[in-house]
Amino acid sequence: MPEYLPTAPYKGTRDFLPAEMSVRTQVFGHLYDVLERRGFLRYDGPILESAEIYERKSGQELADKQLYTLTDKGGRRLALRPEMTPSVARMIAGSAKSLSFPVRWYSHPNCHRYEAPQRGRVREHWQINADIFGSDSANCEIEIFELVHDMMAALGATPDMFVLRVNDRNLLTSALTDVAGVSQDHLSQVFALVDRWEKYPREKLAESAREIGLSDKQFAKLAETLDAGEALLDELPAAVLEQSNLVRVLRSSAGSLVKYEPMIVRGLAYYTSTVFEVFDTSPENRRALFGGGRYSDLASMFTPQQIPGIGFGMGDVTLIDFLDTHGLTPAPRSEVDVMVIPVTEDLSGEARSVAASLRAAGLRTSTPIEHRKLGKELTRADKAGAVAVVIVGQEDWAAGNVTVRSLATREQNPVAIADAPAAVRALLA
Amino acid sequence: MPEYLPTAPYKGTRDFLPAEMSVRTQVFGHLYDVLERRGFLRYDGPILESAEIYERKSGQELADKQLYTLTDKGGRRLALRPEMTPSVARMIAGSAKSLSFPVRWYSHPNCHRYEAPQRGRVREHWQINADIFGSDSANCEIEIFELVHDMMAALGATPDMFVLRVNDRNLLTSALTDVAGVSQDHLSQVFALVDRWEKYPREKLAESAREIGLSDKQFAKLAETLDAGEALLDELPAAVLEQSNLVRVLRSSAGSLVKYEPMIVRGLAYYTSTVFEVFDTSPENRRALFGGGRYSDLASMFTPQQIPGIGFGMGDVTLIDFLDTHGLTPAPRSEVDVMVIPVTEDLSGEARSVAASLRAAGLRTSTPIEHRKLGKELTRADKAGAVAVVIVGQEDWAAGNVTVRSLATREQNPVAIADAPAAVRALLA
Repeated sequence: MPEYLPTAPYKGTRDFLPAEMSVRTQVFGHLYDVLERRGFLRYDGPILESAEIYERKSGQELADKQLYTLTDKGGRRLALRPEMTPSVARMIAGSAKSLSFPVRWYSHPNCHRYEAPQRGRVREHWQINADIFGSDSANCEIEIFELVHDMMAALGATPDMFVLRVNDRNLLTSALTDVAGVSQDHLSQVFALVDRWEKYPREKLAESAREIGLSDKQFAKLAETLDAGEALLDELPAAVLEQSNLVRVLRSSAGSLVKYEPMIVRGLAYYTSTVFEVFDTSPENRRALFGGGRYSDLASMFTPQQIPGIGFGMGDVTLIDFLDTHGLTPAPRSEVDVMVIPVTEDLSGEARSVAASLRAAGLRTSTPIEHRKLGKELTRADKAGAVAVVIVGQEDWAAGNVTVRSLATREQNPVAIADAPAAVRALLA
Repeated sequence: MPEYLPTAPYKGTRDFLPAEMSVRTQVFGHLYDVLERRGFLRYDGPILESAEIYERKSGQELADKQLYTLTDKGGRRLALRPEMTPSVARMIAGSAKSLSFPVRWYSHPNCHRYEAPQRGRVREHWQINADIFGSDSANCEIEIFELVHDMMAALGATPDMFVLRVNDRNLLTSALTDVAGVSQDHLSQVFALVDRWEKYPREKLAESAREIGLSDKQFAKLAETLDAGEALLDELPAAVLEQSNLVRVLRSSAGSLVKYEPMIVRGLAYYTSTVFEVFDTSPENRRALFGGGRYSDLASMFTPQQIPGIGFGMGDVTLIDFLDTHGLTPAPRSEVDVMVIPVTEDLSGEARSVAASLRAAGLRTSTPIEHRKLGKELTRADKAGAVAVVIVGQEDWAAGNVTVRSLATREQNPVAIADAPAAVRALLA
């Protein structure tokens, strides 16, 4: 046993010290605000869930590989949630009777996955989840796409910095079978190949295609189909297009929000039609920031009631990477707006009463804990980012005054005690 | 395997559906605001910590009894944090070189303890932690006591609803040895007895005292000492009183914030002098809501640097119980301020553009996802707590207008499209 324990957090997890936490509070605060303005309602749930809800979906072996599991003293097998969707599905199923669908819900949970830590991969991450439950309407897609744009705009992102790329898995199936001529036997393997389409060079994909059993000609046709972009829609059967919410969106005024990309799949199993991702367009960061999709039956594990939904999860690591890359990360907020400094220690009660009046006026205000010389406290106030200090001195106080000093101009003036809040407010403006 | 999995959360944990979450967001939002106005800086850290940091303090057996532990694939023994203090001690020790002490920090983590669920006891609870690190000054005590009062006031609590009861363990030691005549041999057992003083009837305490080996006369003297209240201070040696921050507070203007109670101990091991608790004065709920204290050396597990601190943890369950008991729990916020309803489905694009202008004016605004008759949507808007609806009709729109309807008065008027935000704002005011 070492004499002192290490101060680093557990591998793959992070401490958020105040300066970093302030950045996060601002970033996520903007996002909460956008969500609330659209009538999305926040919910939350436990970190611990029955391990079974993850295993049912993906099988115990796959689940075990990435899950943090434990068995409680009552013998219940539990997991730290790796994502929020099964939890929210459970809650929606449990409260379905009292809900008037469709509902817009969001949350900001931390999720755990056992991964080898590397850039953009951590074991504990925080994720904004936003979903609409209980409707098949293409208005859901429009709402979610508008929401994504509003969230990005609230973070300061301009339209050139990202693109919202969309697809519909049913369109892809039709493109593969009706246009590219992929046989039913090959379909699921080709889907998996398409999911890797942008991650590997074309030769490597061709090699994988040969392994699946596609001829070079078939691969060329596949590539031509996926490269066709929006023109591909003209080749798809009308009956398929008519079934697609995404096609409805593309044909509406909301079509300008998105870019149709035939090769977008999004790996997760439960998406059944619309899939989408926000893609960073900066040359050094070209990759999906986050994504989501539509599921025709979210809560089938918990209830016979069919509840469709559409939504996304936005992880903190890639998001803050994106903000850093584009110079959009906000500065940490100052620690306080103003400090009230008693010149001598016996005036600390008076200083506290002035501080109380400043706080009542909405100003973030502190008083010294350790008594130090005025010069030292001024330096401290500067470091804390205060715009002003209020100095409480014996003679001033006896005359009913305090001294308000601007830390920017170093100008200082006596003001009546009751006028201190207004004087500091003026410096803050 | 049952066909459908249960929708209840894991025993002792809670789902927070939107209505309940809205209450919590408001309550904790008020508390964050008070903390930020005092210059307390928020931090956060991982849920998973090395199990060792809890076992070092309380021993593996005791730790195991209440800890949720697991071993990761790398063989690391981990625990879900049962409290925040060891985590923040780790962070403070790790960042001590870059901090300019004293610092005021707060957090709002969820913590896990394996307990038999009962009223006020859950396995996952959320706790506001507020601490001042790096100072021995009695100004810390004053700041923390003021903070407690500000937090309670922000929740609507009036001074008659609670009392901030304080003690200093060193005063208690002196009271027991110098006044009550407890021998050194009995001291730790009597401390434990004092910790139960208010939980059991006097006869039961007398019985425990006999078991420890106190005579009935010694117990009577102990009871007399603890019952003395503030008068006890007159009997304590001056040298002991001079060492006590609490005595400094009691003798200052901040003395009115607290009530000295000689029998307050607070169970947790790391408190070394000042201890305190907020006590609910309502007849049906008489008990400690939360508490805290001072530790002379917080981070000794992680660093040779001696870092004193004082702080408290305020759990959500007892806090919200308190608010319920006193009728202070806020109502859930309305889902939206306003709904924009297109009379026919082909006007939904127009409705969305009106909604965007309302949101830009800061109004929480939704549009229907499923198209329904106007009457049905009005009912829905009422249920959502909206103050107004904006109706988008064909003729109105062609004339450059929309109809703004108050849901309170059912009065409705056409207004120019651009004036809709101001018209809704007026109804909200």
